[in-house]
Amino acid sequence: MKVVLDVFGADEPPNIIIDGALLALKEDNELFVALSGDQDIILPILKSKNADMSKLEIIDAKEVITNDDAPTTAFKVKKESSLIKGLQSLKDRDDLVAFVSAGSTGAVLTGATFIVKRIEGVMRPALAPLLPTATGGQVCLVDGGANVDCKKEYLAQFAILGSAYIEAANGIKKPSIGLVSVGAEDKKGNELTKGAFAILKEMPINFKGNVEARYALSGDLDVLVCDGFVGNVLLKSVEGTAKLFSLKIKQNIKASFMAKIGYAIFMRGAFKRLKNSMDYQKHGGAPFLGVEKVVIKCHGSSKASAIKAAVLQAKTIAKAGLIEKIKEGLKSANFAENSN
Amino acid sequence: MKVVLDVFGADEPPNIIIDGALLALKEDNELFVALSGDQDIILPILKSKNADMSKLEIIDAKEVITNDDAPTTAFKVKKESSLIKGLQSLKDRDDLVAFVSAGSTGAVLTGATFIVKRIEGVMRPALAPLLPTATGGQVCLVDGGANVDCKKEYLAQFAILGSAYIEAANGIKKPSIGLVSVGAEDKKGNELTKGAFAILKEMPINFKGNVEARYALSGDLDVLVCDGFVGNVLLKSVEGTAKLFSLKIKQNIKASFMAKIGYAIFMRGAFKRLKNSMDYQKHGGAPFLGVEKVVIKCHGSSKASAIKAAVLQAKTIAKAGLIEKIKEGLKSANFAENSN
Repeated sequence: MKVVLDVFGADEPPNIIIDGALLALKEDNELFVALSGDQDIILPILKSKNADMSKLEIIDAKEVITNDDAPTTAFKVKKESSLIKGLQSLKDRDDLVAFVSAGSTGAVLTGATFIVKRIEGVMRPALAPLLPTATGGQVCLVDGGANVDCKKEYLAQFAILGSAYIEAANGIKKPSIGLVSVGAEDKKGNELTKGAFAILKEMPINFKGNVEARYALSGDLDVLVCDGFVGNVLLKSVEGTAKLFSLKIKQNIKASFMAKIGYAIFMRGAFKRLKNSMDYQKHGGAPFLGVEKVVIKCHGSSKASAIKAAVLQAKTIAKAGLIEKIKEGLKSANFAENSN
Repeated sequence: MKVVLDVFGADEPPNIIIDGALLALKEDNELFVALSGDQDIILPILKSKNADMSKLEIIDAKEVITNDDAPTTAFKVKKESSLIKGLQSLKDRDDLVAFVSAGSTGAVLTGATFIVKRIEGVMRPALAPLLPTATGGQVCLVDGGANVDCKKEYLAQFAILGSAYIEAANGIKKPSIGLVSVGAEDKKGNELTKGAFAILKEMPINFKGNVEARYALSGDLDVLVCDGFVGNVLLKSVEGTAKLFSLKIKQNIKASFMAKIGYAIFMRGAFKRLKNSMDYQKHGGAPFLGVEKVVIKCHGSSKASAIKAAVLQAKTIAKAGLIEKIKEGLKSANFAENSN
């Protein structure tokens, strides 16, 4: 199975992105990668790394979409960019099953929506990042930021998208789904979530009701549904607090001579393991769910290991039939024909 | 100055709440406290603690509002409750300057709105909890959960309420204000925040623009404005993540013999200091801003130290002229007469 990897437009230079592809190829014999970007830059890098060219292809693209390009129009203006040529190839060619990019989020989402196109019946595709949980697992947040203004029906659909994704990614049958709200009781919420709640509880999914943000990372749920504004706030609060906590720990350790010794001699390993377990980049990127093929958006600052994880993740969920699962989910919830 | 303290309806028993009052009285010579609740229970506790009765008064109230009472109607049904009699006394008596309760949030907010009443021009009073920041200070989040469905004008007013509060509480002139959004750029946001942004930037306040939730606790801002749904998500995500982080640290320490030794011998102190610095209960409760007198809601599980902090905080902001500052703020932003 062949995955398209956008080599340009990320914070890291092309050789780091390519390293990610090579690491993924080393780990999975079934995998092939099509690198999208300027051949004149990519080829020398591959040669310098003695890459196995039988597993690789280059989709030559001379332009690059950067964060300075208007995300909603870049796909029209820069048709020769690595992002757009990669997405266009994904759309046109049956042998390409997925696309991975660490480029501009807005450009990836808009490009995917207009080029790869929405699955019939999907009102709004959504981003679905994974977050680490207290029990050592992951929870999928959908929408993680693609749609800042939502209707109740969008939220109901996000449950189907997230459910299909977790089934495909982790093999969990009927993943448990919670609606992010201001309390666990059925009646808690704002107008939007109360409306979504009423739809969700009638749907053929494993809906567990409302969940307070405090318990979002408890590990009790597989999927958290919310609008993209709330999803962004939740995601970024988690990141910000984790950073603040690390900083405070360091400050407190530095402030004490005894603690400094204790850290240096005894605890460095424990903290390294902690950092690893909280590093959600290890799990890959966030799929953009609801378009006709697998599209994964990685963090802009992704290193080779995160790119590797995203490429492997893309292949896994494509192979597990993510798109078919979404179509089945839409059909069973009678959403398959009401696109708007 | 006399502060009313609701002795009943909290998770902790009356003697713990009363301990909070006595600790506050010990710290502030100007302070008087009116304890609201059943005299037959309160008086024996005061006697057993040899309390200085010259600083204390009891507002006798035989009923208690619990979390089982419907929050929006409790103020009508249980007129003899400690919460409602306390609020009614606050409204009726000029010598009472503030009210503190760790009882049912919904009942406190509804009771305060209907009994103490909104300041003229205030559309929606809001909760304003404080959160610890990376720089060792605090940031005020308004609305922290009182209004889950907001109009853009409410958000604009929240900036005035939060600004007046931080001025009164910390003596900061023209506190810096950020609007919680999905990015720092002016154009980022959903319909609600874009509308609020347009109003905020024309107002005579120190508006710094949009702020991503990731930087909410950075310490760069004094006040964060958002609707009550987003505020609740932000607040609870921070709490949940801090808890998850603590848990993970403990797990990682326990998993390693070396780390366990290091913790026991060297690091216990550093962790205790960390816990203290992150304990926002130490700063008191969340004021309910926009009603005619100072009303503070403490966490339901508040211990004596948190009650003490809230009583002192109530007196401080009443003395600093919180209500007058809010009225001035509304006037200068031409909000003083458009109540709805």
